[in-house]
Parts: sequence; C-alpha cells; structure tokens
Amino acid sequence: MEAKKQLHSTFSIDCVIFGFDGERIKVLLIERGEEPYKNFIAVPGDLVEENEDLEPAANRILKSLTGLEDIFMEQLYTFGKVDRHPLGRIITVAYYALVNIDTFNPKASSFARKIDWWAIDELPELAFDHNAILAKAIERLRWMANMQPIGLELLPEKFTLSQLRRLYEAILGIELDKRNFRRKITKMDFLIPLDEKQINVAHKAARYYSFNKEKYAQLKEEGKAF
Amino acid sequence: MEAKKQLHSTFSIDCVIFGFDGERIKVLLIERGEEPYKNFIAVPGDLVEENEDLEPAANRILKSLTGLEDIFMEQLYTFGKVDRHPLGRIITVAYYALVNIDTFNPKASSFARKIDWWAIDELPELAFDHNAILAKAIERLRWMANMQPIGLELLPEKFTLSQLRRLYEAILGIELDKRNFRRKITKMDFLIPLDEKQINVAHKAARYYSFNKEKYAQLKEEGKAF
Repeated sequence: MEAKKQLHSTFSIDCVIFGFDGERIKVLLIERGEEPYKNFIAVPGDLVEENEDLEPAANRILKSLTGLEDIFMEQLYTFGKVDRHPLGRIITVAYYALVNIDTFNPKASSFARKIDWWAIDELPELAFDHNAILAKAIERLRWMANMQPIGLELLPEKFTLSQLRRLYEAILGIELDKRNFRRKITKMDFLIPLDEKQINVAHKAARYYSFNKEKYAQLKEEGKAF
Repeated sequence: MEAKKQLHSTFSIDCVIFGFDGERIKVLLIERGEEPYKNFIAVPGDLVEENEDLEPAANRILKSLTGLEDIFMEQLYTFGKVDRHPLGRIITVAYYALVNIDTFNPKASSFARKIDWWAIDELPELAFDHNAILAKAIERLRWMANMQPIGLELLPEKFTLSQLRRLYEAILGIELDKRNFRRKITKMDFLIPLDEKQINVAHKAARYYSFNKEKYAQLKEEGKAF
C-alpha cells in the first residue's frame, strides 16, 4: 500500500467547439506549435493541473489556446487507448460546446500557432486520436438533433425556418423535405413566430422565428417521448 | 520536456449495473473489504492497469469483483474532483449497463466482501464520490427512458404492458396513467403482441408482448424526433 499513497493522474482535456456558418457545421481547431504532433491540426487541449477540477480546467485550457471564455461545455466522452499519446499513458476527457460563430472571435495563443474553423466534412488528419474524438462529437451532435431541439446556441437570435432546416441538414448530413420539416418543427412548439419578416430579399420574404427558451430547455431536459 | 517523457495516468473505472426486480430499479453494490473506505458500500470499481484499454479494463474489473461477464457496458461520465480519492488525484471513468436481474448471479470476490442489489431510492452513504456517480447514472437512465425505448435488457423475454409500465414508473419515479401509457407505447411500434396470455392469474389474463429488436435498435439509435 505504501506505493499507492501518492497516486496521481496525468490526464488531459480536449475541447470540441462547434459552430454553424449558415451552410455547414464547423469545428474550431488549432495548429500545434509544440511537440508532440508539432505542426499538426488538433482539437484545443492540454494537460490538467494537479489541483484543478475538470470544468475549471476545461475553461482554462480553452481560453489559453483560443481566447474563448464563458462558454458552457458539456462532457462528451473519455478516450483512453493505451497508445493514444506518444509520451505515455494519458487519457483525455473530451468536452464540447455549440457556439454562435459570429459572436466569438478566437485568437491563437500559448502553443496554438494558428486557429481556424474547419468544416466537419473536410477534416485533415489530426493529432493524437483527435479524429476519433471529433467522430464521437459529431455522432453526439446528430443524436442530439434527433432527440432534442437544437439550434439555440448555433443560430442568431432570430432566424427563418429555412435557416433552421439548413442547420438540421448540415448536422444530419441529409436533405430534408421542406414542407415536412415545417410541419414537424412548428408542431413541436418551441418556436415563436415573430411579426418581423426578411427585408431586401429577392424571393418572397420569410418570417423570422425565435426560440421559446423555456419550452426549449424543458424539451431538452425531458426529451420528446413521454 | 524531459520530465514529460514518461507521463502516466493512474485512474480507475467504476461499473454501475442496474437491474429491475419487477417493482424497483436496483443497482449492484459491493462492500469493500480493503482501505480506503473499508467496510463502505461502493460501486464495483478498481484501478486500471498500465496497458489496458478502457473497455477491457471495465470488463476485467466487473468480473473480478462480481463474477459478472459478457455484459456490454457503456461509458457514463468521468468524475475528477481533486479531492475525490483519499490517496491522491485519481479520476474515475464510470461505465453502466442494464441487466436482467434473474439471469445473473453475482458473487463477491477480490476485495469485495459482500455484494447486493440495492434499490436506487434507498441508497446508503457510499464510498468515494459514488453517490454522485449513481445520481448521474440514474439521471442518464431517466433521460434514456424519455428519449428512447427502454426495457430490452431489464425485462424478461416476454412481458405484459403492466410490467413495462411498472418499469417506466420505477425509472421515472412517477405514476403513469394506464390507458395513456398503453396508447402511447403501442403507437411507438417497437412492441410485438404475442398470442400468449398470462395463466393462473386472479385478474383478467393479460397479453404478453416482446420487443421488436430491429425496430427497438433503430429507435434507440435514431431517437424519435426526425
């Protein structure tokens, strides 16, 4: 037992930040300026300090590499393959968040040399097991879009049903029937139709909607079945 | 960088195993025969070996403490509060599974001195942060019952709608209206009504159902919204 007295986990946290540019789902990735995987594109992530709880560590790491703060991240999954890190056994806890791409202005810092939004259907070969982490994150995003309302964090405050449909299409990777989508989504009762319509558009001006945040949160928590 | 060459995570895995006894949701807990938390009731869990991937480790640990094998566990959540373990910084990855309580016969071994099914609404004070782990697992179970079909692993091969309703009631912790439940659940199209009915019952014999496993799996994957 003596040897066990000062047990210590060296582990990391990786932060998957998704955004939507109106057409595609994007993810915020850095170019690493340090070994291991120097020059590789990677999910922003780093080692957790000895005295840090997970959520504060996730926020510190995201801020130090990207400048982003005040972003609520949820835990995604923990990745722990024995050979995932060249420097030893380091498991990593992945977190994720959805953000409005127009509201945040990420800046590379610390060992991040560059930072960019990458379309999730055009990802390069990433550092570590980060392709697997993103695959899991995208799977979670799809699953959420099937189970719960989605879009509050990703869309502007007011949006058209076409914008919302394009978001679902981008997440699910399929084309949705316009009329069917409109019928189903308006029935779900978390959208508020606004009096305002688009202006200066070539086509027929579409109505703007916003989310009923209370109903949205309720559906998100309770799901849609019972 | 030299100091980083042999990084090492000491971390544990805890296995939350849920069962249903026809009335209540139960969870499989051990009594620890070793420090730390000797004599405390705990979720079966242990340290992961240096060269073990997560899923094999989860299976080895569950088997060594409870004798259960061939159980598919899913990752639940990782718990990493700085002070969660008295011997140092040890994060733990929690896994969970739902099992048929009649099919498995757990036996305490290794440092597990006793093993029992505990009702989730009558839990004692547990070792480490295991009350928090179970709270999260129960939350996940409720969430799943709202989002997806549930019961395949928890119920016998054939069951009545009353049994299925009692399962939902036990998970959700609420009473469900019988007629409403019957209407909603049969509409969801993952149940197969059998020709067989109950025998030797005092009340009107109820029909047995089984799960349409294909449809069940499909709904589980896709959810119920779009």
